[in-house]
Amino acid sequence: MVKVIFFDLDDTLVDTSKLAEIARKNAIENMIRHGLPVDFETAYSELIELIKEYGSNFPYHFDYLLRRLDLPYNPKWISAGVIAYHNTKFAYLREVPGARKVLIRLKELGYELGIITDGNPVKQWEKILRLELDDFFEHVIISDFEGVKKPHPKIFKKALKAFNVKPEEALMVGDRLYSDIYGAKRVGMKTVWFRYGKHSERELEYRKYADYEIDNLESLLEVLARESSSNKKVHPPRQQI
Amino acid sequence: MVKVIFFDLDDTLVDTSKLAEIARKNAIENMIRHGLPVDFETAYSELIELIKEYGSNFPYHFDYLLRRLDLPYNPKWISAGVIAYHNTKFAYLREVPGARKVLIRLKELGYELGIITDGNPVKQWEKILRLELDDFFEHVIISDFEGVKKPHPKIFKKALKAFNVKPEEALMVGDRLYSDIYGAKRVGMKTVWFRYGKHSERELEYRKYADYEIDNLESLLEVLARESSSNKKVHPPRQQI
Repeated sequence: MVKVIFFDLDDTLVDTSKLAEIARKNAIENMIRHGLPVDFETAYSELIELIKEYGSNFPYHFDYLLRRLDLPYNPKWISAGVIAYHNTKFAYLREVPGARKVLIRLKELGYELGIITDGNPVKQWEKILRLELDDFFEHVIISDFEGVKKPHPKIFKKALKAFNVKPEEALMVGDRLYSDIYGAKRVGMKTVWFRYGKHSERELEYRKYADYEIDNLESLLEVLARESSSNKKVHPPRQQI
Repeated sequence: MVKVIFFDLDDTLVDTSKLAEIARKNAIENMIRHGLPVDFETAYSELIELIKEYGSNFPYHFDYLLRRLDLPYNPKWISAGVIAYHNTKFAYLREVPGARKVLIRLKELGYELGIITDGNPVKQWEKILRLELDDFFEHVIISDFEGVKKPHPKIFKKALKAFNVKPEEALMVGDRLYSDIYGAKRVGMKTVWFRYGKHSERELEYRKYADYEIDNLESLLEVLARESSSNKKVHPPRQQI
């Protein structure tokens, strides 16, 4: 019987991919407005390439962008990028459609809730706190804080331990087949693949680890209804809801 | 004859001290709201002490605050502090009363304008751009970018060179007697001490280097009127306006 529901954060509870794209575009536009002597397409594609190479948490995106474009260091351009990026990020920070409604319903139904996410702990907490989601969750487990990344079993085991439940009493909901679904299944949790955002067609080789697939968060309530009615089934067939 | 007017940034054009105080207080309050187990006075005075020791641009204020309070690292508390600090900073970022009005008048009068400031270049530009002040200034000279701090003569000489003027054709306006007034006077500029903010009673041993003292920015127009009428006086007596 499912007692605890774990959520991934980015593109599961928080609409991160869309947000980042709009923010990066606005950053480049504002840098150009303040004198960056490059056309939008060149600068934007260079930034995207850079982020792919260095990761989205690298703190010197705009500094490195200038280097890659063979331009001198210019704090005004960097500042213009940072301002536009932050303003956009705060303006567009939103929950995935229906997320809060589902969380409220899950609390009404008596579930305990947790977050298992990768990423910079302070930045991940920033999204949670800015969206006022923190009161829904008994525990938030962030990989960079634990020293391992999903799908490493250790982070899922730490999460189970925090709630003092067995793997089969926990269900993991996430948008990534590899880190969320494969990772949670490997320790014995139930798994719900949320097909949302840029990962909805990726890592399909791990699809077999998903007990359920949903394409909107509300469908999670249906998953849980089925789970509680088919209580004894240890390996339910993968179900598209 | 004065052709170029240089301004310091913090507490001369931008109301920085007030801003920082409100933002820091709000940061502590939000950390406590999210569980920091310390009373406001203890945490705030520890933060102020820390900033005095490590400087206001140190990037780990809140991390170090937890260490000083013998508390474990907690990304949620840090994030709560960062969010409140940034929200407050952006909400309260304001020009010093009358600054924009004076800048417009100075442009009407035909002066060229520059900024000579210490600090992190990206952060200094952020204030300038967020307040939309950049179009008033032909050149912005930021010490950390040049590798020297005020009152080092090098930064003032670089500023003069950027405008291609002699020292006696330039006037420096700033709130700090040591870095702004003594620094500018040493290279031969005219100096106007703006008695404003927390430095209005400090470093008085350098007061003799101020040609003028004003306590609101509008008075700068009067200073310039006197300067252009008493054109030939090489060393005007210090005048309180």
